[in-house]
Amino acid sequence: MERTRQVVAVDVGGTETKAALVAGTARSVTALAHRRRRTPRAGDGEATAKAVVGAVGELVDELAGAADGPVEAAGVVLPGVVDDRRGVGVFSANLGWREFPFAGELRGRLGLPVAFGHDVRAGGLAEYRLGAARGLTDAVVMPIGTGIAAALVVGGRLHSGGGRAGEIGHVDVGHGEPCGCGQRGCVEAVASSAAIARRYTERTGRPVRGAVDVAGAVRSGDADALTVWRDAVDALARGLLLVATLLDPQAVVLGGGLALAGETLVAPLRARLDELATFQRRPEIRLAELGDEAGCLGAALLAIDLLERP
Amino acid sequence: MERTRQVVAVDVGGTETKAALVAGTARSVTALAHRRRRTPRAGDGEATAKAVVGAVGELVDELAGAADGPVEAAGVVLPGVVDDRRGVGVFSANLGWREFPFAGELRGRLGLPVAFGHDVRAGGLAEYRLGAARGLTDAVVMPIGTGIAAALVVGGRLHSGGGRAGEIGHVDVGHGEPCGCGQRGCVEAVASSAAIARRYTERTGRPVRGAVDVAGAVRSGDADALTVWRDAVDALARGLLLVATLLDPQAVVLGGGLALAGETLVAPLRARLDELATFQRRPEIRLAELGDEAGCLGAALLAIDLLERP
Repeated sequence: MERTRQVVAVDVGGTETKAALVAGTARSVTALAHRRRRTPRAGDGEATAKAVVGAVGELVDELAGAADGPVEAAGVVLPGVVDDRRGVGVFSANLGWREFPFAGELRGRLGLPVAFGHDVRAGGLAEYRLGAARGLTDAVVMPIGTGIAAALVVGGRLHSGGGRAGEIGHVDVGHGEPCGCGQRGCVEAVASSAAIARRYTERTGRPVRGAVDVAGAVRSGDADALTVWRDAVDALARGLLLVATLLDPQAVVLGGGLALAGETLVAPLRARLDELATFQRRPEIRLAELGDEAGCLGAALLAIDLLERP
Repeated sequence: MERTRQVVAVDVGGTETKAALVAGTARSVTALAHRRRRTPRAGDGEATAKAVVGAVGELVDELAGAADGPVEAAGVVLPGVVDDRRGVGVFSANLGWREFPFAGELRGRLGLPVAFGHDVRAGGLAEYRLGAARGLTDAVVMPIGTGIAAALVVGGRLHSGGGRAGEIGHVDVGHGEPCGCGQRGCVEAVASSAAIARRYTERTGRPVRGAVDVAGAVRSGDADALTVWRDAVDALARGLLLVATLLDPQAVVLGGGLALAGETLVAPLRARLDELATFQRRPEIRLAELGDEAGCLGAALLAIDLLERP
């Protein structure tokens, strides 16, 4: 019987940083308190990284101060390219750092054992242990928001490669449109929430708050919305077909803001994948269960795993 | 200290079946004797599968009879879609079977413990333990012959999914040519040894023995050969870029007949991959070390692993 651990989990996002006081085991966790604040930015990437370490420290102190009993460890996850093994934030396009030794800096600041990881993989870990991918051995957990990336569950373990695995947003699916990464035809360039909103506005001149508005327009039969949506669904289906061909997962779990579109997204995506696939096993398409808490819960699991490690 | 085991390994191919008497441990094996014979074919897929079981039985009996000391297990690997966990040959386009329970039938025929697996994954296991991917944790071992498939080493383990993982020959890289699998744009349709030979002959009217002749023509500056070769290299580079984007492997090991072209293949492939990649880590491109023995050595390793399992 594992004993219940109390940890603080922090999910540093491009805009907002979420933190939680979490109690639980490697198979079951409960968030007892939450904090949110804007992710700090400073003059350059290194200064931003140091400011992030400071902000994480304040959040951990605050939640530890509010806790009933001692906090045993912290779990901290970051966006961008993260090398978990070396404890390094390799690169963040959004926040600007390169090769910043977060794990060491955080240990120094927090005075606690620190588990350090990647936001998308941590979210995937949470969906795998606690959410929509529970009980599977091979699954892809794909949040779709400003960008698109995936956590790969391979043989029951999260795969990180050298820190860059799972960049399904940047596989070429043939539509030819340029992407911010320098390639053309990337899934993300037409299928991220940001791309869907932008392409709808470019087409119609009508501003929208986000892809959720475009999904609403799809449901009311707006022809422009249908076109933009169809392009997004086609790109996602082609990306998932590549993943199915290479990795043969049992299921794909869709998360992030775009997954809030529910069946408006899932039904045409299933249908398009069925049209495109020939010999491949069609992975089951599921919706994420943990919403935007997944990263934080995953960070908590990383911290608990660290404590349970023999 | 592991003790040395003596096993018989059989690699059933679409045309030829190779067998070997092998002695060794999970980290080092030596083939003591070899046998080869044509893979039998019968009226339908099920009859062929039964004939294959019979032929494997004869090869194992013969090599066990020639052995000095007892044979402790057999390792048998097959082409097509193979579900190692269930012990089933799910599908072979070439040999025709569907859902044939090979592992059970072989155990009945051989009267020995039987390890059962997939030819490409077994070859990848051999290159990973004994050959060009030794010491890595994340690698792709890709034999290029009549078709193209890959063994995926992910976090130090061979990944099979539901038996269909690694079908890199059938990802769409955008060239638009039809493939035998029913899709278009597959890597295999322009870059397999068979496709290279066929496309060269279609272009020039000149018959060739295989891709090795086309590689020779490339080295002597034949313009048609250069065009066909460039198409193949481009498709392979695009396929490897997809793998790099999704799995971030340390290295790709090229095997099969096409790898005999050596630097004629590797040098332009490295260059094309460098041109196409943006943020991705470029995997090291290596040549396989075990040649067409890889499948048989991998089958031997599977048998030894079975004996060593606690």
